[in-house]
Amino acid sequence: MPSNAPAANQRASEPAASEAWVIGVDIGGTKVAAGLVNRRTGAISNPVRVPMSARVDAAAGLAAVTSAIDALFAQSSDARSASQAIGICAPGPLDPAAGVVLNPPNLPCWRDFPLAAELERKYHVPVKLDNDANAAALAETLWGAGRGHRTVFYVTIGTGIGTGIVFDGQIYHGRTGSAAEGGHITIDYDGLPCACGKRGCIETLAAGPAIARLARARLTDQPDSQSMILALAAGNLDVITSELVGQAYAAGDPIAQQVLQSVVCFLSVWLGNIIDLLEPDVIIMGGGVSTMLKPLFPEITKRLPTCCVNQRCQEIPLLAACFGADVGIAGGAALCVPALHTQ
Amino acid sequence: MPSNAPAANQRASEPAASEAWVIGVDIGGTKVAAGLVNRRTGAISNPVRVPMSARVDAAAGLAAVTSAIDALFAQSSDARSASQAIGICAPGPLDPAAGVVLNPPNLPCWRDFPLAAELERKYHVPVKLDNDANAAALAETLWGAGRGHRTVFYVTIGTGIGTGIVFDGQIYHGRTGSAAEGGHITIDYDGLPCACGKRGCIETLAAGPAIARLARARLTDQPDSQSMILALAAGNLDVITSELVGQAYAAGDPIAQQVLQSVVCFLSVWLGNIIDLLEPDVIIMGGGVSTMLKPLFPEITKRLPTCCVNQRCQEIPLLAACFGADVGIAGGAALCVPALHTQ
Repeated sequence: MPSNAPAANQRASEPAASEAWVIGVDIGGTKVAAGLVNRRTGAISNPVRVPMSARVDAAAGLAAVTSAIDALFAQSSDARSASQAIGICAPGPLDPAAGVVLNPPNLPCWRDFPLAAELERKYHVPVKLDNDANAAALAETLWGAGRGHRTVFYVTIGTGIGTGIVFDGQIYHGRTGSAAEGGHITIDYDGLPCACGKRGCIETLAAGPAIARLARARLTDQPDSQSMILALAAGNLDVITSELVGQAYAAGDPIAQQVLQSVVCFLSVWLGNIIDLLEPDVIIMGGGVSTMLKPLFPEITKRLPTCCVNQRCQEIPLLAACFGADVGIAGGAALCVPALHTQ
Repeated sequence: MPSNAPAANQRASEPAASEAWVIGVDIGGTKVAAGLVNRRTGAISNPVRVPMSARVDAAAGLAAVTSAIDALFAQSSDARSASQAIGICAPGPLDPAAGVVLNPPNLPCWRDFPLAAELERKYHVPVKLDNDANAAALAETLWGAGRGHRTVFYVTIGTGIGTGIVFDGQIYHGRTGSAAEGGHITIDYDGLPCACGKRGCIETLAAGPAIARLARARLTDQPDSQSMILALAAGNLDVITSELVGQAYAAGDPIAQQVLQSVVCFLSVWLGNIIDLLEPDVIIMGGGVSTMLKPLFPEITKRLPTCCVNQRCQEIPLLAACFGADVGIAGGAALCVPALHTQ
C-alpha cells in the first residue's frame, strides 16, 4: 500500500538521545511490529517485525512482544535511553483505560491479559494500549492527514471496516472503551447478515469481501460481459477478491466500475449518517480498499448533499490516510503523545 | 405531558436576589415562553407565555421575545437584579457560537438574525442561543434524568425526532454547530423518503406521523380487526394520530400493540447504531411519543444485544426525560450554566 505521508513512514536515520522518541508496537494475529517513532514528526525509525502465533499461550505471546521491543533497542545504543514510553495497538476488544486485552477473536492466546502492566514491569516506562482503528485515528490526527484538525473521523477499509473518533486531540472511547464501532452502523436494518449478528452493517456492504461478492453477483447476472475481472480470476468466480476488482477498475472494466459505484453509494449514505451525527472537521480513509477507492472520493463528496441534512457537508474534506502499512506502529506511538495537535 | 422531574417544573416561589437565577426563553412558531430558572436545581419560577407570529418581520419577532422577558421581570422586583444571563432555545438551523438564527423553516421572520447580540444590547447580560434538542439535552444532564453522567444522548420524539449530545457536560456541536441531527440517521437507505431529502431516516419510521401511518396501513390490511383505533377515529383513517394509537395501546388494542412493536424494533436498531458509535453513559428519551412509549423501554433494552456489537449495551440506562412541556425554558437556561454536573 503506497503512503503519502509527509514525514510518516520515512525511514528516519539513527535516533539521537537528544530527540524525543516513543516506541510504537503493532500486534497482529501473525506478527508483532515495532518501531521508534519521533514524537514531533511521526517518522518511524527502522521498524522490526517478529513472527507471533496468536494461538500460543499468554507467556509466549508476551515474549513475542518483548522480543520485538528488545530487537529495536538492540539496533541502537541510544534507542533505549531516548525512549520515553511504549504504545501498543492491538485487535479489540480491549480495555484501554486498564491496559488489558479482553477477548479478541484474533488473539486467542490472551484473555483478560494485563499487557500494559506486564510491559511496564519489564521496561519501567509508561505503557498505553488501544485498538487499531483508534490508534490509527490518533496517528493521522497528530502527524498525518488530520493534522491541525480537532475533530477527526477515521475509517480503515480492508477485510472489515474499522473507525476511530478523535475529539479535541483525544481518542473518544465512550463509556467503557467500546465506542467508535462505526463499521457496524447499519444502513439497511433488514439487509444482509453481518458476522457481528446485526444486518446491513456498512462492513457487509463496502469492505473487501462485500466488493468481491458484488462483483460475483454482477458477473453471474451478466455472464456474457467479457469482464476483465473474470479474466484475472481465470474464470473462477470463487477466487475473485476486491484487489482483482480494483485492478479491473483501474483498467476501465465496466463491471468493476458498476461494483465500485455501488460501494460509493453505500459509503456516501453511511458517511452522511456520520456527518449528521458528528459533523467532524475532516474524514480520513485508510486501508487497502480505501486506497483503491481514492479516485472515487470526489464522487462520494458529490453525493453527500443527498445523504446529509447538513447543508455544509461538502466543506468537510474527505482525505486519504497518510500512513500506510506502518500505521499500527505510528498508532501505538501516538497513544503516548499528549494532544500535540492543539498546540 | 406529565413530568417526573425532581425539581424541574416545580413552580418555585418568588426568586430571591440572594439565589442565582438565569432566564430561559423558548421560542416556538406560535409563542415565546420564558421563565426564571434556579441554576442549582433547574426549578422554573412562574413561566410566562407570549403569542408570536413566526411570519411577521424581524423586529416584531424580537418584540415578542423582549415582551416575554419584560413580563418575567414585571412579576418580581428581584427578578431582574438576580438574573445573571439569558439563554434561548430556538428552532434550528442556527449558529450557536455566533448567537445567530440562520433560516429555520418554522421562523421565517428571521433570516441570519443576530438574536443574541440584539438581546445583549437591550439587557446588558450574556445571551446564549442553541437549538431545542441540544438545549434540552443539557437541561436533562444538569438537572434531570442525566444528572451525574458525563456523556448523554438525548432524544425527543414528537412530530419529528430531535437529538442532542452532551460530552463532559458540554453540548457537542461539531464543526459548525450542525452535529447531533440523529433523527436523520437512516437505517434503511432505500426506504421511505424523508422530508429532509434522505430515505429511511428514523424520523420517517418512529416519529408521530410514522406511527399514524403504520396504524393506517395495518387497519387497511386488516379491515375486520375491530380495532379501537378505528373507533377512536370514528372510522376515518385520515384523522388517526399517534395519540389515538397511544390511547388504544393503553387499552390493550392488538393493532396498536403491533404498531408500537414495529416502532420499538426501529428504535432499537437506531439506538444500536448510536451505542456502537458513541457508547454514551445514558440515553434519555423525551417528547410526547416517548412518554407513550415509556412502558416499552424495557423491550428496547432487551432487543439491544441483537442491534449492537457493544457487549455491554444493556448496562446503558434508557431513561424517560424529567422535563415536560417546560423543557424549552429549562434548556435555554441550561445554556447559561457551565458544566455543573461534573462538580
